[in-house]
Amino acid sequence: MTDPCSPAQGPLAMICGGGNLPFVVADAVVRRGRSVVLFPIRGWADPTAAARYPHYWVGLGQLGRFRRLATAAGCRDLVIIGTTLRPSLRQLQPDLVTLHYVPRIVELLRGGDDHLLSGVARIFEENGFRLLGAHDVAPEILVPEGTLGRHRPSARDLVDIARGVALIRAIGPFDVGQAVVVADRYVLAVEAAEGTDGMLARVAELRRERRVPLSGKTGVLVKAPKPGQDRRLDLPSIGVATIAGAAQAGLAGIAVEAEGAITADLEDFVKAADAAGLFVVGVPAGAAGQGGAAAGAAAGTADASRAPS
Amino acid sequence: MTDPCSPAQGPLAMICGGGNLPFVVADAVVRRGRSVVLFPIRGWADPTAAARYPHYWVGLGQLGRFRRLATAAGCRDLVIIGTTLRPSLRQLQPDLVTLHYVPRIVELLRGGDDHLLSGVARIFEENGFRLLGAHDVAPEILVPEGTLGRHRPSARDLVDIARGVALIRAIGPFDVGQAVVVADRYVLAVEAAEGTDGMLARVAELRRERRVPLSGKTGVLVKAPKPGQDRRLDLPSIGVATIAGAAQAGLAGIAVEAEGAITADLEDFVKAADAAGLFVVGVPAGAAGQGGAAAGAAAGTADASRAPS
Repeated sequence: MTDPCSPAQGPLAMICGGGNLPFVVADAVVRRGRSVVLFPIRGWADPTAAARYPHYWVGLGQLGRFRRLATAAGCRDLVIIGTTLRPSLRQLQPDLVTLHYVPRIVELLRGGDDHLLSGVARIFEENGFRLLGAHDVAPEILVPEGTLGRHRPSARDLVDIARGVALIRAIGPFDVGQAVVVADRYVLAVEAAEGTDGMLARVAELRRERRVPLSGKTGVLVKAPKPGQDRRLDLPSIGVATIAGAAQAGLAGIAVEAEGAITADLEDFVKAADAAGLFVVGVPAGAAGQGGAAAGAAAGTADASRAPS
Repeated sequence: MTDPCSPAQGPLAMICGGGNLPFVVADAVVRRGRSVVLFPIRGWADPTAAARYPHYWVGLGQLGRFRRLATAAGCRDLVIIGTTLRPSLRQLQPDLVTLHYVPRIVELLRGGDDHLLSGVARIFEENGFRLLGAHDVAPEILVPEGTLGRHRPSARDLVDIARGVALIRAIGPFDVGQAVVVADRYVLAVEAAEGTDGMLARVAELRRERRVPLSGKTGVLVKAPKPGQDRRLDLPSIGVATIAGAAQAGLAGIAVEAEGAITADLEDFVKAADAAGLFVVGVPAGAAGQGGAAAGAAAGTADASRAPS
């Protein structure tokens, strides 16, 4: 693959959902000297931020409009980034080109997120675009390996991390979620349609109601891509809101697959984790098989003061 | 194993948590001519119902008191039945005998429910009791195979059921939950510490907020024991509240593993399902491997009027 970071690849088309990640990525691309053309999705993307870039608003499902404008702007490479909810067919605003794909879209909506996203990716590729991951054009958004802040996972946390990574791997074929909460070897929550924030709020409530017998900061939020998922779309993302949710849930820290999760601003994120007293660790892919040993190696020596007695 | 239903086995000790299932089981045992001695757990069991049987109240963790009284009453067989929450060590009221087991209990509390329950079972066995499943002494509480009410699963529902059963099997080694919700092949929710009612309430909220793009009655609650779990304890249970929760969540029906789930009153349960317009089906264990075919066979011909177009 030709270097996706290179300005020689021509302007980059970016279909943008909600949140600030699209603009963080756009800025990173522009910083490298490559131009961008944004296609903010009506109802999702932030209008004020979008106004800072060359852009054309699109409705969800307006493939014809996108294809015409992106081609006219000289874009061949495409990144799709930012939050949206799974649409219902009724929420789509298909134009004439998209109408052609409706039978396929109906089929894609019947299944998990991967199934939907990889099908959508194929449709863009059939229309002549090269789909890239946001991290291909802006590698700085990837969470690196190792302990990232001031706090370190304990030996107990490393066991929880290994268990969480293995669980995400086991549910991969079912196209469920990308996150779980494990506390002292006990699986407190598995994410599905509710999303990470919803799952963390649930754990916070279970603990507030004393429905789980845990005290002190215990447990880890583990996020990792599903095995086999298309990494160009929907890599798990974390941010300052994740820190707030994990702190509310009484967790000890957050573990993500290194280079397998993205964040808009790593420095802000780590600062927030430090302030909240949470550890953040990037675990190398494949660490779970060794029962926490590799996770331990990645995280450095476990903090003995937090190890269970 | 000698017939656990036979009165010749002597009086049956029953440690009782919350709900009416303990008393349904006690009545069924008494109906067979076997006597019972109840050990209702303080704070969990219903005092009014318990008063109808020979009984001795016990605090959570009073093994010494239980052993002394059950032995004096001539009980060798023991059933543990009814709802409790996972206790914290602090919530236990250990007597002198239990104190001896505290180090082991500490270890048992570190892990999933199976880990805890099978460890507790071993402790009772070491103290000379034969632990039985409630369904061993009262087989009528087991949910049988086949379509149980007026409504039938559609072809789409059968696919969702097969997916749900396979998912529960995949997460089995992680000692997570016994229930999932799958709607049109999309996994909406996986149960962990929040329990089935909590999971169904979450699905209802996701649908109310239109965060999942489903319309009409779509999706199935699937409940099945974890593979390898000790079936004498904690078989998944369903009841009228489950029907209410599933209806609120907009589901089409409920599938459980046949002979792998219990209910206090099957007739009431099925009547409630009929009234709510939900199907209820008992799927034979091992049905998932055949991708819904066996589930279809168990459920009879799928209802063509509800099959997707």
